[in-house]
Amino acid sequence: MATMKEIAERLGVSLGTVSKGLNGGRDISEELRQDILNAAVELGYTSRRSRKKDQRKLAVLIANMDFETEDSFGYEIVLGFRQAAFATDWAVDVLPIARDFQQAHPFDAFIKQEKWSGVFLLGFSFEDPWLTECRTTQVPAVLLDNAVNENPHVAGIGTDSDEAMNMSVTCLMELGHEKIAFLNGSAGSRISDHRMAAYLSAMHRHRLPIEPNLAVYGYYVADAAKYHVPGFLDRGATAILCGNDLIASGVIECCRSLGFSVPEDVSVIGFDDIPLAEQLAPPLTTIRQPRAALGRSGCHTLLSIIDHVPVSRTLLRPSLIVRGSVAAARPRVAKKQENDRDSVERVAPELYRIYAHMPMF
Amino acid sequence: MATMKEIAERLGVSLGTVSKGLNGGRDISEELRQDILNAAVELGYTSRRSRKKDQRKLAVLIANMDFETEDSFGYEIVLGFRQAAFATDWAVDVLPIARDFQQAHPFDAFIKQEKWSGVFLLGFSFEDPWLTECRTTQVPAVLLDNAVNENPHVAGIGTDSDEAMNMSVTCLMELGHEKIAFLNGSAGSRISDHRMAAYLSAMHRHRLPIEPNLAVYGYYVADAAKYHVPGFLDRGATAILCGNDLIASGVIECCRSLGFSVPEDVSVIGFDDIPLAEQLAPPLTTIRQPRAALGRSGCHTLLSIIDHVPVSRTLLRPSLIVRGSVAAARPRVAKKQENDRDSVERVAPELYRIYAHMPMF
Repeated sequence: MATMKEIAERLGVSLGTVSKGLNGGRDISEELRQDILNAAVELGYTSRRSRKKDQRKLAVLIANMDFETEDSFGYEIVLGFRQAAFATDWAVDVLPIARDFQQAHPFDAFIKQEKWSGVFLLGFSFEDPWLTECRTTQVPAVLLDNAVNENPHVAGIGTDSDEAMNMSVTCLMELGHEKIAFLNGSAGSRISDHRMAAYLSAMHRHRLPIEPNLAVYGYYVADAAKYHVPGFLDRGATAILCGNDLIASGVIECCRSLGFSVPEDVSVIGFDDIPLAEQLAPPLTTIRQPRAALGRSGCHTLLSIIDHVPVSRTLLRPSLIVRGSVAAARPRVAKKQENDRDSVERVAPELYRIYAHMPMF
Repeated sequence: MATMKEIAERLGVSLGTVSKGLNGGRDISEELRQDILNAAVELGYTSRRSRKKDQRKLAVLIANMDFETEDSFGYEIVLGFRQAAFATDWAVDVLPIARDFQQAHPFDAFIKQEKWSGVFLLGFSFEDPWLTECRTTQVPAVLLDNAVNENPHVAGIGTDSDEAMNMSVTCLMELGHEKIAFLNGSAGSRISDHRMAAYLSAMHRHRLPIEPNLAVYGYYVADAAKYHVPGFLDRGATAILCGNDLIASGVIECCRSLGFSVPEDVSVIGFDDIPLAEQLAPPLTTIRQPRAALGRSGCHTLLSIIDHVPVSRTLLRPSLIVRGSVAAARPRVAKKQENDRDSVERVAPELYRIYAHMPMF
């Protein structure tokens, strides 16, 4: 277990400063205080005060998501949550939860037994029994990238898809691209539907042509690329947006195998900014999800709900990280020509289908 | 200035309990602690600690909104903000801000001069110069019922329109209503557009007929009713949703003057649940905006932004308060018959128009 001295050494500040940062002393900057709290969490420092009271405990419960190594998607989310909890003097348990465990243990009873005041659920999908139980639970809970209707004890948090897709489309438009394809993740997930709607809105807002065959659902794996990229290229797409960075890695690979170079012939933009993104060749331009901030916001939102503020959802702003996978458009003649360039008539019913069946996010 | 003794008397607890509640003692319930903090704010108690440090100061800035009397829309919002700020040891200034004051004082410079770490803006509209300055400001700010794009220092908060309209439509549908009209507030405001989209989605989700002449924009005043209610009744509407409670009061009045009784002939539902709502005859069924919680969430969200969490928006859940203005539907023959009953073809482009020009909320 780390000591205050180790925190002081790591940051090159005095022991007195660390004490002020950890114990709410006021004559240090908010910035420095955050750095001290962050170092305390990273080094595993536990105050005597929080060791005493195991009454104030939260949990991060994780299904279907890697979080244990520094390059995994969940790592910084969990770290951010723990930082915010530490700063407000809550202890945190972090547990992976398998599906058969959920089947064997009712959600409410298990949370009660563990004496958690609230839980943050990462990676739970519609097939997970505990997500179904969240519809009616009275346990304060926050879901990442998901939501339930009309339950004041449960909030959803995520990244603002609208702003994300708008940033990507704007970047490409400024580089002269017009035929911009979107290879989304799996159909039928809430987050994929939001991103599809956001893509359609962004294209329309910029008066760019929308072709139904250039806006498709795939799967959240690199392999999805090979089923769709050849069609995109035949139709003259000069840029491809992707539902996540893994899909983007497959798209780059697939373009290359078909004799198209990235970014000279085709620009590619990913989503998430996982550590893999900057190691690709070329390094991937991508939408960064603010993962540590999502974790902190998960904790802030959970504490709001515990404080009887009925949050329905909270969205955080993404940022566009520009690397080598985008360049000025080099127009190509399409082998297959679409008859319909855009049209509200084609797009609106699709948007409408999406919105009519779920709350907007 | 109130003392701890007065807080203890108000709540019927001991002085020691009040002290624990105010100073973070752990062996009292979270519930009681909240009650103590709430009483402290209401009674105007200021701790010696917070009197010392005027460094940690937030502000609530208010344009175009009443907040000073207990029956005004803004009163509980401001109170909720002050409660959450007190609990985390921030001082709060509350100021009405006139438009000419904004013209004379640039936003960033004024906030800096007053030494506020962040501000909560209530009632600012697109005509207010400070809202324009929020697009590029670096001052942490939270806007009620508004938003700006891509500025990580500014978040929007509000009530979940989707859930609100869905609750209203579901309630009426269960009472047998099918022709449900919507008299919205003013066109061109972000919040009105969201409510219109949410109404259209809710009607479609319930497979109820949507008629363009039954879904109209008016103004946020009681007088708006007389221009639209006669048309609704001619077309056979048996229920009318309203953009706020003032509009609803005008709708009830107007129905009566045309010989229709509420709720026997026409059911009416408002929005906001201002104190006026339960004093109407009949008492108004309405969507309650959680005003104190909006204030608390305004403070929580502002502190998140100060802590470098780039919140884009936070939505809170409304609740439906059922009073005497709704009853089982008594079908009437319409004098004017519409040719088009619903159709995605009519509704989708309207939804699309709304979404294409603004971020979803």
